Amino acid sequence: MKIQIVRDVLEANDQLAGDIRNVAKKEGFTLMNIMSSPGSGKTTLLERLIPALTKKEIRTAVIEGDITTTADAERIVRMNIPVAQINTEAFGGDCHLGAEVILPALHQFDLSSLDLIFIENVGNLVCPAEFDTGANVNVVVISTTEGEDKPLKYPLMFRVCQVAVINKIDLLPHLDFDIQILEENIRKINPMMEIVSCSAQTGAGFDELTKLVIAKR
Amino acid sequence: MKIQIVRDVLEANDQLAGDIRNVAKKEGFTLMNIMSSPGSGKTTLLERLIPALTKKEIRTAVIEGDITTTADAERIVRMNIPVAQINTEAFGGDCHLGAEVILPALHQFDLSSLDLIFIENVGNLVCPAEFDTGANVNVVVISTTEGEDKPLKYPLMFRVCQVAVINKIDLLPHLDFDIQILEENIRKINPMMEIVSCSAQTGAGFDELTKLVIAKR
Repeated sequence: MKIQIVRDVLEANDQLAGDIRNVAKKEGFTLMNIMSSPGSGKTTLLERLIPALTKKEIRTAVIEGDITTTADAERIVRMNIPVAQINTEAFGGDCHLGAEVILPALHQFDLSSLDLIFIENVGNLVCPAEFDTGANVNVVVISTTEGEDKPLKYPLMFRVCQVAVINKIDLLPHLDFDIQILEENIRKINPMMEIVSCSAQTGAGFDELTKLVIAKR
Repeated sequence: MKIQIVRDVLEANDQLAGDIRNVAKKEGFTLMNIMSSPGSGKTTLLERLIPALTKKEIRTAVIEGDITTTADAERIVRMNIPVAQINTEAFGGDCHLGAEVILPALHQFDLSSLDLIFIENVGNLVCPAEFDTGANVNVVVISTTEGEDKPLKYPLMFRVCQVAVINKIDLLPHLDFDIQILEENIRKINPMMEIVSCSAQTGAGFDELTKLVIAKR
């Protein structure tokens, strides 16, 4: 009985995710879902990436997913782009964003005026990977402070993503951490993964990241 | 209907958690559940804490929770203490450890010969907080690289824990991070929280942490 219900929830989610991709195609925007552990630097990364995209005349918006607080959305709105906040505590403190909350969030935007909509998912390296948000591109952010073993320990996340961003490379001199081992572990799980290293703090690597995001659009 | 089933699962879990606390009382051990985001340093912390406890003649064991791999258990077993590995992929890749997997893991140990059993939960700042493992003490590890805002964004985790360990203080000189703000945010959510700062890398703060763990036993 329990299995039946879980399957129904996932099937309903997948159907809505398909609907979202149809909306994206019709309205001509790309939906990019950014996932990571708490504190990997997703918001700081967007704070640096979005102005670079704006300079290239790419019109962006962000759907902010948090269990509670609007702290991240308040940081994003300072860039004068549209932001929709989803607080999952209204849905029982959900540990991920499902398609059922993304669809109404999208309809808060003037979709025809946007090229690229980011989802900043709930900080969680497990559950968000299990739910299709309807995104066209899935991105995992992993910071150098998290250790090289995370792709092996959280393989589903690295399987469902097409892009891996290794953040906080400014801390490399202070860590017992080998970025090559992390990259090897990522490719063990997902040989096709596009990997870019950067520091949202210093800006290192952001030319390459901006190019990659534009190419994925 | 869905709500009913979720309630049943949680009720069944709570009953088993109570059973586990009865076993702990009867056998005379303390069960300490360690939770955090992926990469906060739980395993490294245990690698430094357990030898310090052994020196004080406290007999320990560890239940290692991971979705997949036995990498952490292999690190722990080098300390010549009993280890039980739970891989949640056998249960659909569960994002947390429930009491139903802790109880059989406990029975792999000679319980009468143990004083303190650690649970290293799945790396996840959300879901593990929702499931009572039967532990006597809940500990959250938060690293300095994760930012000051995490207690506000993941309040349930900080509500269900009695001890917060702030790890990776060796990185403080290299971070734009204010440890006092983190402590204030922790106390906003849980004014009774006992907080200790340390570095599992350098050993700083481990005298205090060892004392606190012994006091909590």
